[in-house]
Amino acid sequence: MNVLIVFTHPNKESLNGAFLKNVVKGCKENGLIKDIQLLDLYEENFNPILYFDEKNKRRHMHKNPVFAKYRELLLWADKVVFIYPIWWGRPPAMLLGYFDQVFSAHFAYKNTGKYTAKGLLKGKSVICISTMKGPRMYPFFLLHNVHKNLMKKAVFQFVGMKKVKFFEFGNMEASGQAKKLERIYRYFRKMNS
Amino acid sequence: MNVLIVFTHPNKESLNGAFLKNVVKGCKENGLIKDIQLLDLYEENFNPILYFDEKNKRRHMHKNPVFAKYRELLLWADKVVFIYPIWWGRPPAMLLGYFDQVFSAHFAYKNTGKYTAKGLLKGKSVICISTMKGPRMYPFFLLHNVHKNLMKKAVFQFVGMKKVKFFEFGNMEASGQAKKLERIYRYFRKMNS
Repeated sequence: MNVLIVFTHPNKESLNGAFLKNVVKGCKENGLIKDIQLLDLYEENFNPILYFDEKNKRRHMHKNPVFAKYRELLLWADKVVFIYPIWWGRPPAMLLGYFDQVFSAHFAYKNTGKYTAKGLLKGKSVICISTMKGPRMYPFFLLHNVHKNLMKKAVFQFVGMKKVKFFEFGNMEASGQAKKLERIYRYFRKMNS
Repeated sequence: MNVLIVFTHPNKESLNGAFLKNVVKGCKENGLIKDIQLLDLYEENFNPILYFDEKNKRRHMHKNPVFAKYRELLLWADKVVFIYPIWWGRPPAMLLGYFDQVFSAHFAYKNTGKYTAKGLLKGKSVICISTMKGPRMYPFFLLHNVHKNLMKKAVFQFVGMKKVKFFEFGNMEASGQAKKLERIYRYFRKMNS
């Protein structure tokens, strides 16, 4: 199994950075995992701003050489792990811009003329690890679960990535984060599909 | 009434650009509107990437001089009109990064120690005009209304902007957009609150 980790936080010395370390540590001790690649969007200086006009058409963006590397990483991966904080009920603009730029038509999906497209990233699975300031149940009760719907229904299912697992961690400024980190390490060490 | 228009589309010759023209035209013919300001995030080359670390703390971002102009525009406005396309069930990364950068703590809201914050942009109202490729009812049935929840509940209500009106236009690649444009023009010409 090839694992791609997409990390989106400006500061590696953060709780998100600690989750990253534990994911990597767990993966390295997991005999079923062949290889791991890390994509740190902030460190890459990834350009999240999708631009198009009459000359640079959106329908040609799947051929844009600037993003070839990111498309290849996705094709290579069997599992994609996203690590990010929740800001305003959803991931940072940087990560959403990654979808805007890399999940292009003819690469990630194909329009069928019907309401839903044909997903071209079928068979790959996703794990989302997110942190937020408030309590874990807050988005469920107050925001109609907007984060999960946004990621699972509007992005991953659309491109055929049907298996999506969430680890949502609340109260990130409280003490006692060690248990959460341990849980992630153990999960990735034993992960078998 | 002071109206701020926040426009987020890479191409002014788009349907979004046509909506912008009709909003401006309607506002100019509306005697209740004192002044209009346009903020075109793409044209501004707005930096949507929130960065912070141990030295540049997130809690000090409300004093960041780079974004003073954008905070002043918000304080000046009685009504904020957002015009944008829907990509992946939500606005472009550029607009979401505008919230990440400009809607800072101590400026847009104040933490209270409770689940919800105290909104500091009270009394201002919002209109969101969005276009999407699919049919208008698609996000309602298939995406659990994720766009509206993301904007209204996770952003505007959090900062005290309670009055939020949506114009969601589907099938943007079909013919017959003139009626939608006319509807927007008439709405802004007569808008009285």
